[in-house]
This record gives sequence, C-alpha cells and structure tokens, in this order.
Amino acid sequence: MFKIIRVNMSDLSVKSEAVPDAYQGLGGRGLTSAILLGEVEPTCSPIGPNNKLIFAPGLLGGTRCANSGRISVGAKSPLTGGVKEANSGGQAGGYLARLGISAIIIEGMPEDGKLYKLFISKDKQELSPADDLKGMGNYATIDKLKNEFGEKAGFASIGPAGEWKLGAASVAFTDMEVRPTRHAGRGGLGAVMGSKGLKAIIIDPSESERVSLADKEAFGKAAKRFAKALTEHAVTGQGLPTYGTDVLINIINEAGGLPTRNFRFGRFETADKVGGETLNKITIERKGETTQGCMTGCIIRCSGTYLDEKGEYLSKWPEYETVWAFGPNCEIDDLDAIARMDRACDDIGVDTIETGNAIAVAMEGGVKEFGDTAGAEELMAEIGKGTPLGRILGSGAAVVGRAFGVRRVPVVKNQALPAYDPRTVKGQGVTYATSPMGADHTAGYAVATNIMKVGGDVDPLKTEGQVKLSRDLQIATAAIDTAGLCLFVAFPVLDIPDAFDAIVDMLNAKYGLSLTGDDIGSLGQRVLKMERDFNKQAGFTAADDRLPEFFKLEKLSPHNKVFDISDEELDTVFNF
Amino acid sequence: MFKIIRVNMSDLSVKSEAVPDAYQGLGGRGLTSAILLGEVEPTCSPIGPNNKLIFAPGLLGGTRCANSGRISVGAKSPLTGGVKEANSGGQAGGYLARLGISAIIIEGMPEDGKLYKLFISKDKQELSPADDLKGMGNYATIDKLKNEFGEKAGFASIGPAGEWKLGAASVAFTDMEVRPTRHAGRGGLGAVMGSKGLKAIIIDPSESERVSLADKEAFGKAAKRFAKALTEHAVTGQGLPTYGTDVLINIINEAGGLPTRNFRFGRFETADKVGGETLNKITIERKGETTQGCMTGCIIRCSGTYLDEKGEYLSKWPEYETVWAFGPNCEIDDLDAIARMDRACDDIGVDTIETGNAIAVAMEGGVKEFGDTAGAEELMAEIGKGTPLGRILGSGAAVVGRAFGVRRVPVVKNQALPAYDPRTVKGQGVTYATSPMGADHTAGYAVATNIMKVGGDVDPLKTEGQVKLSRDLQIATAAIDTAGLCLFVAFPVLDIPDAFDAIVDMLNAKYGLSLTGDDIGSLGQRVLKMERDFNKQAGFTAADDRLPEFFKLEKLSPHNKVFDISDEELDTVFNF
Repeated sequence: MFKIIRVNMSDLSVKSEAVPDAYQGLGGRGLTSAILLGEVEPTCSPIGPNNKLIFAPGLLGGTRCANSGRISVGAKSPLTGGVKEANSGGQAGGYLARLGISAIIIEGMPEDGKLYKLFISKDKQELSPADDLKGMGNYATIDKLKNEFGEKAGFASIGPAGEWKLGAASVAFTDMEVRPTRHAGRGGLGAVMGSKGLKAIIIDPSESERVSLADKEAFGKAAKRFAKALTEHAVTGQGLPTYGTDVLINIINEAGGLPTRNFRFGRFETADKVGGETLNKITIERKGETTQGCMTGCIIRCSGTYLDEKGEYLSKWPEYETVWAFGPNCEIDDLDAIARMDRACDDIGVDTIETGNAIAVAMEGGVKEFGDTAGAEELMAEIGKGTPLGRILGSGAAVVGRAFGVRRVPVVKNQALPAYDPRTVKGQGVTYATSPMGADHTAGYAVATNIMKVGGDVDPLKTEGQVKLSRDLQIATAAIDTAGLCLFVAFPVLDIPDAFDAIVDMLNAKYGLSLTGDDIGSLGQRVLKMERDFNKQAGFTAADDRLPEFFKLEKLSPHNKVFDISDEELDTVFNF
Repeated sequence: MFKIIRVNMSDLSVKSEAVPDAYQGLGGRGLTSAILLGEVEPTCSPIGPNNKLIFAPGLLGGTRCANSGRISVGAKSPLTGGVKEANSGGQAGGYLARLGISAIIIEGMPEDGKLYKLFISKDKQELSPADDLKGMGNYATIDKLKNEFGEKAGFASIGPAGEWKLGAASVAFTDMEVRPTRHAGRGGLGAVMGSKGLKAIIIDPSESERVSLADKEAFGKAAKRFAKALTEHAVTGQGLPTYGTDVLINIINEAGGLPTRNFRFGRFETADKVGGETLNKITIERKGETTQGCMTGCIIRCSGTYLDEKGEYLSKWPEYETVWAFGPNCEIDDLDAIARMDRACDDIGVDTIETGNAIAVAMEGGVKEFGDTAGAEELMAEIGKGTPLGRILGSGAAVVGRAFGVRRVPVVKNQALPAYDPRTVKGQGVTYATSPMGADHTAGYAVATNIMKVGGDVDPLKTEGQVKLSRDLQIATAAIDTAGLCLFVAFPVLDIPDAFDAIVDMLNAKYGLSLTGDDIGSLGQRVLKMERDFNKQAGFTAADDRLPEFFKLEKLSPHNKVFDISDEELDTVFNF
C-alpha cells in the first residue's frame, strides 16, 4: 500500500515501487538513513550523480496524532561529507503520508544542466521543465507555483543558494499560509537538490485518503492522551506558544551559555532586546499573529508572524537559534534586522545557523566589525547576489575560516555550532561532538535537562552524567525523528510517562504491531548505528567526534569553564 | 655539535638545544616528520598555537655532495589537515647545515598579531619586529632584507598569502641570485608561518665552518662517483639542463597524460607552444640564461632566467608543473603569460600547482572561460589583492569547488593534483591517492618508470605493477628527502647502481656509520610510517587514500581509460 517514488534525473523517469522489505517499519530519519546506507556509496561526491536525495514523512505522518507531520530530508551532506538528515515542519510531510508515499528518492543528475520540477498527486507523478524559475528566491518561486498549482498544494523548493550548490543551502517547505518559511536547513541538502537540477516539488494532496489505521479506536484514544500531555506541559503548553522558541534567549543568557561574539563570551549584555518577551511585545504592538503552528495538526504553535515597522508581513517568527546566530553571536541586538536576515535566509535558501556563524567568523576575520548591523545585512545581500564574498559565506563557517585565516571556527564535522555554548551546557557539547550529523542541537537536546530541568537535572557545568544524558537523548531523538514527530514533544515525553506510552500505542494502533517502550529505544539505536556505519565508510573516525580546539583552550565567561569532557569519555557515547 | 634552534613566538624567546636522541640520525623530511609526530597534537588547529613549523636541512646538507642542499619544511598542513613536508631548493638548506643547525622549530603564536623576523648566524639567533614588511610580496621583502643583511645571507619569507593564512600559501627561499624563486609550495606551510607572525628568516652563513666529516677522503671519493653518475645520465646530464623540467610538456602530451581543461582531456593541441623546447628557444632569443642551478652545489642546473619581451628579468624558468597548471590545464598556451603568473605566485607566496588548479576549477565553475589568458591573469591579480575572489582561489582548489559548486575537483586529502593524469599514468595515480602528503607527484614519481622508462618499464596504462612501483618509489623518496638530495638524483640512482652506493658511502663517511643499502630502505619506511601514524591520529582512514570519484567515472582521451586500480590494491601500498 505504501510506496516509494523513485525519480531518475539522468533519464528524467519517475517510477513508483513497493517499499522493499529492508525499509519496512521505518519512516522519516530512520528511512532516509537506511536508504542512504543501502544505496549510496559513502565516498561519492555529494553533488555528483551517485548521491541520492530522499524525502520521507515519519511513521505517524498524516494521522491525527498531534505534531506528527515533520518531513525528513536525507543525503550525503555536501557540508559534512557524511550522513545527513534534516527535518522540517510545513505541509509536505503530512501530504506525502496521506498520499501513501513513504519516500521520494531523487537519483542521478541531468546532463543538460537544466532545471526541473516534480509534481506529485494521487494519480500522477511527473517531471517538467522549470527553467522559468532559475535564480528565483523561494518566495518568488512559491508565488509562481501557487499561481499554477493552487494554494492547496504543499511545496518544497530551493533558492539560488541551492542552485549554486553551496554548503549552507537549505530545502524550503511551505507552511499553512503557503509561505516557504520551513526549512530542512542543515548540512547543505539544498545543494544536493540543486545538483540534481530539481528546483521544486509540488505535492497535491487532493483526493488523498485518510491514512489507514489498524485499530482506529485505539489510535484515537492514544492521540487524545498525547495531545493532553502536550497541552499540560509548561514548555509546550505555555512557554513556546506565547514567546516562540526565542523564549530561550533570556534563559540561556542567564545560564551563561549564550555564545556571544563568535563564542568569546557566554552572556550578551543586551540579550533582552532580542528575546522572546520582546518578540511577543513587538508582535502584539504591530498586530502580528502570535501562537501559530507551522503545519496542520500542530497544537504547540510556537511560531508567529513578524511584521515590519509599517505592519507589513516580513517573516515568520525567527527561531531562537536564528535570533542567536545573527544576534548575540554577531553582537547585534536589533530584532527587526534579525527578522530581515531570517527572511533573506528563507528566500535565498540558506540555513540560518550556518549563515549566522559564517557572518560571525567573517567578523572575526575582520570583514566587518562585531555589532555592525548594517554590515551584517550587507553580507546577507552578498550571499543573495552570489558575489565571491557571498559564495564564501554561503559555503558555511568553515570555508569562511579558510578564506579569512580564522582559527576560531566553531564547527564539528565542518558544520557550525548552534546557540548553546558547549563549555557551559556540557551535555550539549557531547551531542555536538558526537552526533553523526555534525554539530546539531536537535540531535540530542541536552539543554532540556541541563538548563530547563526537564527529564531530570544534570548540572550543565560539570562533566558528570553528560555522556549518558547525550546518549539517551540521541537515541530517543532518532526514534522521534523516525516517527515524524516535532522534537518539542520531547519536553512532555521526558516528564510525563503517559506521553511516551501514547506514542507507542499510536504506532501499534496504526501498524497493527505490539511494540514495547524498549522497541522504541532499539529503533533509535538502530538508526544511529546505520548513520555511524555510513560515516565510518565515508572516512570518519573518533577524531571527527571532537569539538574545535579553542573550546578546550579558552575559558568562557561568566563561569570560566573550558570544555573538559575527555576524548575517552566522548568515545563511549555509542557504547550500546 | 648539531643543534636545534627552538623559537617560541608566544614569549618571543629563542633557545638553542642539543639534538635529542629521538631525532638522531634523521634530517630533512625524516626529521620534520619525527618532530611533528613527537611534539604536535595531530588534531590541533594548523594555524593555532599548538602547531609547529619546522625547517630542516638534510643529512648530507652543507657537504660537497652534489645537489644536497634541499631544505625540508614541516608542519601540520592547513590544506590537508595531516602531516606535511614540502622541500625546496635555494640557499637556506646548505647554510643551515654549515651552521650546524639540524632544525629550527617555530612554536606558539604571538598575542599581539604583529610580525617578526628571525636572524640566524653562527653566534646569534634573535627575533626582531618586522611590521615594516607587512603585506609585502616576497620580492619587495627580499629587496628590503638584502639592504639590511647583505647578499651573502640566505632568506626564507612569506608573501601576503602567508600573512592571510591561505591554504595555498608557500614559504619562499632565495636562490643563488638572492631572489625568492624557490618555494616549499605545497600544503599551505606559508599559512603556518603567517599564523606564527613570522615574516622572514635571515640565515647568515658567514664564519660558518665546513661540515665535519668522519672520513673526509672516503666522502670525497664517493661524492665524485655520485657527481659522475649525475653528469652521465641522459635526464640529469642533458634533458634537464637544456630544457628545464618543462621538457616534460611534449613527452607527457605525447603519452596522453597531460591533463587539459581541468582534467577533461589527456592532450593539449598547442602543447608545444609552452614546452621546454619553446622555453629554451625564447630564452636564447631574449638573451636569458639557460642551465642555471637553484642552489650552490647543483650540477643538474635545470633552471634558467625567463626574460620578458623587452629583455627584462621576469622570473626563473617556470617548472613543468607550473607551466601545466596555468597552461594546458586552463587551455592557455601563452608562455609569457604563464611566466608572469609564475612570478606572481612567487611574489604573493602561493603554490603554483594549487593555484593553477584553483583557476582551472574556477573556470569549470564559470568564473572565467577556459583559454581566457587575460582572465586567468586577472584571477592571479585578485589573489594578490586579497579580494574575496582572491581569498577563494588562494585557499586552494577544494575551496574553489565549494564556492562555485564544482563537482570535478582534482584533489586528494584536499590537495590539488599535479601535472600527470592518473588515468594514463597509473603509477602516479597510486602515489596521488596514497601519499600521506595528499596528491603529490614528488612523493613517488612513477612517471619515471611509467613514461621515461627509468628504473625499469611499467606500462602506464595497465593496472599491473603500479602499486609496487609507487610503494618502492615512496620509500626511496622518503629517504632521498631525508638526505636533503634533490629528487632528480633519482633518475641516475634508478639506472646506475653506483649512484645509490655512493649515497650510502657518503652517509657513512660523514657520520662514521656502516649503513647498508637496506638501511636506506628501512629509513624510508620508518619515515612513511611516522607520517601515516600522524595522519591516522589526525583522523585519516583508507577513505582518504582515494582519488576523486570522477577519475573512476570519466574516461580520459586519447586512451579512453578510467582510474581502475581497486581500493583493495591501494590499501596494500603500505604493507611493509
């Protein structure tokens, strides 16, 4: 019943096939990683014909389970050279699941260097020329596609950065307002899509049927328990809906873990000017919307609409990591400017974390001064124009470091660090160092337990317990990403036992299985092992599971800590 | 008697110490690699305080042994991230040896970001400010230093590329005319020198004594036999002195192994316009000098003086690899333009092989057209000016590929391939893939046996025998580089047994040893093992011992061959 759509860009063929046995029982990240390991030579060129780009909704996608519509995108990463899964909100995940599609696999490479778009509906899957979209930003691309395919479709697209095959290039997905504000941002997956000559995917969910459920009643009951937990938990029920993820600015600043001036300090004096409370206030003043979901079925609704000073739509609410990357990390405290840069990233199609870091490293290299808001916006404009300077920045923080002779480059596996300093939030440092994805906060969000005391309390400044914390969270996250759930469900899941049980019950009710909680843990372990296997074959070793040297050499104020979890301990993270 | 000069750039101290036991019996590359493995954390930042930059003359340096004055420069490479030794002609090697200095080790990093110069003489070793040289090219730098220190000193220096810490940055050494034309080019060692704030080293050999010899008479006899072999062999006695290394253009073109248009074709239609015969003819017409040595004691004398159309000094004779990199590989056949770009590389302080490849990859990415001579010179000018485009190019071919979305990037371990296509000169392909240095023709010059039939005959188009050929040559080369001999002595050594015996006899006569020929092989193996060990600790695996994918996918005309030596075979190169 479930199928895989296999698109060959070399001969422009589109075929539908049954899901092979080897991929049964997997969805989302588990499926993209399994396909990568099974079908892609780990040493191939990431932007060559032998890489594959995979889109997969999660195991619970398309159901009435709250927050289950994430879409995973996988490929060998042009940024890290290893396995990559980046997942996104937006409408595509739910729509694909409703169409009974477990995965779209994009293979090969067109000889002619032309652009194509892929249309997917219940009865039709076809490629057609898209050279009219060449060089267009995501907003213009989606406007044009909406005219042709209507507002009921879901869209995936790349901006010029993807066409240029830059290391920071993202894949954009449209949200409920059909705007390209949701991104599989990390690891340069947009460059893989660009290398395949695929500018956009249109997913028309009309005439799709309800996702079939083995036990409809049991599913409904479990879905209600799950929704209840999400609503009741303080983080998902109150903090996130009111202030967005940007609520973290003041919390992480207070904890001394807000990386400032390219990871030189742990606090930013004017952090409050860019925090969630300010974001909420500005939004209400300008009559923007707060508490918006990014996909159908979201009941957390941590987004909103950011209006400019004239009250015109500017962007969705910038995420905490975005605010941090362009804000404190560049010593910038102008939220309007940050929202403009967020919008520019969505339009050009680049990852906000990688791009903000790239700008901060360029500042460290003397290209602009820290705190130069206009200068940072000029750099964003360079990326959009594709100038040589823009190409450097769009290639990510590591390339900026090479071009401008900067030693303090915060990357692991060539991917830039997110918004939590590993010296002050040490569990997060373990995740950055060891995740097969490169530095990635979502891969094992130890901030929850280190700072927010969700799921326990592990002192963020001490070395004790961090490896176990990161290990457990990386396993749980691999399972959550396989289910297609928004990562924020982890907050209630960590604190409310019934939230976790409800997930198990929904999986069983949908697929007619009898999984236990342990099986979910095993699933997460299996996914991580596949990813580690791919990386090993690609040439990764323990030396790649390390933070940059300067985190061990330079003490971070205000706590004056270095990252001091030993290499030997880091090497035990995947002992399971 | 022999000593090490240890220079700490953090506290600006200079100390002299006896050569520790662990380093006894080593010189040149053997010594730089031993110091790296012994003292440098392989995962450190290459441009950080924990890397060390090491200068070492060879075991036979400073003696009357012909062609024994090479200087090895070693460090963790900013380009490859692994072990690096690049050696150079010029006067520094012989002068250091005569001063009884086995190695200069540059450690630490100045806090103030200022530039310094290091003066070395018999009785004085000291650092002094050099901010007056900031931003200067190598030619202006040497002119200024010559005024201060006279023409009898030898100089090492970096151009602006080294100050900017670019991946292609070289370390320049002055030749017999006190011009900065000799470079430790590969692997970005100039960036390490720049990161240390060291702009130049002045080596004053006055009052230095003759290198002491355990058996002066035996040494003299062996040195004569060695010189005789060099003079008698056709390559070192006739080909190289007359036409320079550029004699290879027509030979390699005829063999179908001259990489053209960024490794798309194996022959270049107008190759002859840039070959050694043309170089010789132009030089004679313009009354330049042919048959010049690059260092005292050279009897091969493969260089010359390249005059411009007005008869003014432009550069030394461009080497074959330089002519190829800016010539056929960019589809350029203007020898004057190539000589200008060679001069620019020497002045800016960038490796010609890396830079020519960088320009070719930029052409592949659409920055300029192939064959656009003026365009290529514009790109060289960008590097000199340090513009963003220049920073991309000066960071090497791999960064150019990232910035401009190019898949066909000819690098191994991030270092660009030299002037012999691995599909048509397969023994050379094995060396490129497996050398601990990254793609390096000098590390095991299989061209000798594949094409020139020196030391035997291994068909360059077949897979048979290439691994053994590369292995034997890599071992021999590690020993030659340790002795401080010019690599070109390998031609007579491979064909005339007494040339090899003479080297053994000279080592014994100098140090009072009784080494056998087997000991020399063991020495080469020991050096390679140390280098492989460093790389392993830095995170290298078998996956790094591979050519880029496109050499396996694209057939090269005219022989229509791919690189087809299996991964399994490549992994046996270091089985000894």
